[in-house]
Amino acid sequence: MKKVTIGVDIGGTNTALGVVDKEGNVLVKDSILTPGHGEIDLFIANLAVAINKLIESAGRLAGEVEIMGIGFGAPNGNYYTGTIEYAPNLSFKGVIHFVEKLKAHYPDFKTIVLSNDANAAAVGEMMYGGAKGMTNFVMFTLGTGVGSGIVVNGNLVYGHEGFAGECGHTILIPGGRLCGCGAFGHLEAYCSATGMKRTAFELLAHYDASDSLLAGKTYNELDAKMIHDVALKGDKIALDVFKKTGEWLGQGLANTVHLLNPEAIFFFGGPAAAGELIFKPAKENMEKYLLPFFKNKVKILPSQLNPGDAAIIGAGALVLKEIDRLS
Amino acid sequence: MKKVTIGVDIGGTNTALGVVDKEGNVLVKDSILTPGHGEIDLFIANLAVAINKLIESAGRLAGEVEIMGIGFGAPNGNYYTGTIEYAPNLSFKGVIHFVEKLKAHYPDFKTIVLSNDANAAAVGEMMYGGAKGMTNFVMFTLGTGVGSGIVVNGNLVYGHEGFAGECGHTILIPGGRLCGCGAFGHLEAYCSATGMKRTAFELLAHYDASDSLLAGKTYNELDAKMIHDVALKGDKIALDVFKKTGEWLGQGLANTVHLLNPEAIFFFGGPAAAGELIFKPAKENMEKYLLPFFKNKVKILPSQLNPGDAAIIGAGALVLKEIDRLS
Repeated sequence: MKKVTIGVDIGGTNTALGVVDKEGNVLVKDSILTPGHGEIDLFIANLAVAINKLIESAGRLAGEVEIMGIGFGAPNGNYYTGTIEYAPNLSFKGVIHFVEKLKAHYPDFKTIVLSNDANAAAVGEMMYGGAKGMTNFVMFTLGTGVGSGIVVNGNLVYGHEGFAGECGHTILIPGGRLCGCGAFGHLEAYCSATGMKRTAFELLAHYDASDSLLAGKTYNELDAKMIHDVALKGDKIALDVFKKTGEWLGQGLANTVHLLNPEAIFFFGGPAAAGELIFKPAKENMEKYLLPFFKNKVKILPSQLNPGDAAIIGAGALVLKEIDRLS
Repeated sequence: MKKVTIGVDIGGTNTALGVVDKEGNVLVKDSILTPGHGEIDLFIANLAVAINKLIESAGRLAGEVEIMGIGFGAPNGNYYTGTIEYAPNLSFKGVIHFVEKLKAHYPDFKTIVLSNDANAAAVGEMMYGGAKGMTNFVMFTLGTGVGSGIVVNGNLVYGHEGFAGECGHTILIPGGRLCGCGAFGHLEAYCSATGMKRTAFELLAHYDASDSLLAGKTYNELDAKMIHDVALKGDKIALDVFKKTGEWLGQGLANTVHLLNPEAIFFFGGPAAAGELIFKPAKENMEKYLLPFFKNKVKILPSQLNPGDAAIIGAGALVLKEIDRLS
């Protein structure tokens, strides 16, 4: 009988789910919309229907399967309590006792585990990606926000209350840009996909760059993907956005290295797909800030997982990590 | 037979050593000068003589004692390799294979362990001080430099190569003051004892404060202790130095909380002795930067160890921690 896990990634728009084998292959996958189910109990009931269908499909495909457990990655997901707490991008408000509610549908499953999406990405990378064999590394997730999953001595750092890894809310520029959280100058306000849009608009204004391919876009139209597209065409403003974003990231990387001395830092998510456009300035600026004994030692790497499946694989890997912890 | 450890704190000027019982009491202590022994082997030979004398004294005082091991706290001390590497404040240059050399003098001792001074302070606090029972906390050591010892899941964070915890070299003000390490804007350049002196001189200049009690001191005369003394007399510039230092520290604390979600952060060392003068602005500014779910939760506390003995106690505690790890 094939042993598998179920990985579920809860996002603001879509919830992706898949059956993952022990080698990290996604056997079957599906997705449902996250909002629009009304209250949370209905969302969970619909999610359970989708999970059950998926288990059936996996059985048809791979013969009989043994489900080892279900892992969830969710914004503001708390590993200790199994709750999703005040997630700004989800339609479910307040504190959601997610694991408890899910368990009602799966009373026979021993391992139902939830963590935030960045932690899930870190565990996925450790089990199946570029961090195989590493015991001290950090995963930066770059998207609408910026998160991080920190691994120390082979284990995720959850902290006292389960909310460690909020690197996006460390202070990059004191008194700088307003962050979505209401504070000023946080890294997320500079290095997220939205941060890149903000940088583009600042640079358009700074250089009065009416000849830029970005000059015809409204603030509400522009996104990080467009900036990447025109950067590939050589647009100077777009190239400069990547350079500046990389430099800011490099500053955050240097802080991370000084505090945690990781073997590697991985990037995951949309902006990271731009490759050397962002990795080069990030590495160069990080090195500039490092103490001599850290210089030229820390690897800055893209996630080695298939972007389309990584969130599901990471969520599934949480199950294996939890079984390992309890054994 | 009383079980004891030997704790040795190697500083730029003095090396303090003591015999510590399992309750964290220093039974006997001594110190030798760190520089002036010529080469490292001679220093270690003289240190061994001092250690042997101390063991004799402890025996006379407490009856027969069983030495469980020797712990060393040293700047740039590397737990993994037992080396002291390129410590800027020590007279010994390059990479010193300290534990290996020491073992030649104590072939029968199973546990000879070395770490940096901030890590030793963190372990001392965890075993005997205010962090008893805590599994996730951070110790900031404020002195000539600023260091930190990070405890996650009950264990010190050493990182991939043993140099984690360099919070003093995280970036506080991009492009700001020159740090002793050669980079710009590091926390240490603002929040160390030397940073306070620099702040005093900036403020004297900024306010043209010829009526300040600090206005009669040269740059080379002034130190953090003098600033504290005149702050207690109500000197406005000195009070402002503490306020600003606290605010900067608060920014560093907020970053630490976001990354690690500790239960508490402890301050140890000279500037921390100023109590509320520095704790109040540090706490207030930290809170200002925190995400909602961290607010009003993290304790900012002074070390609960006797400052005169803390470094010895911490170094001795490294031995117990190591025995615990290997058991």
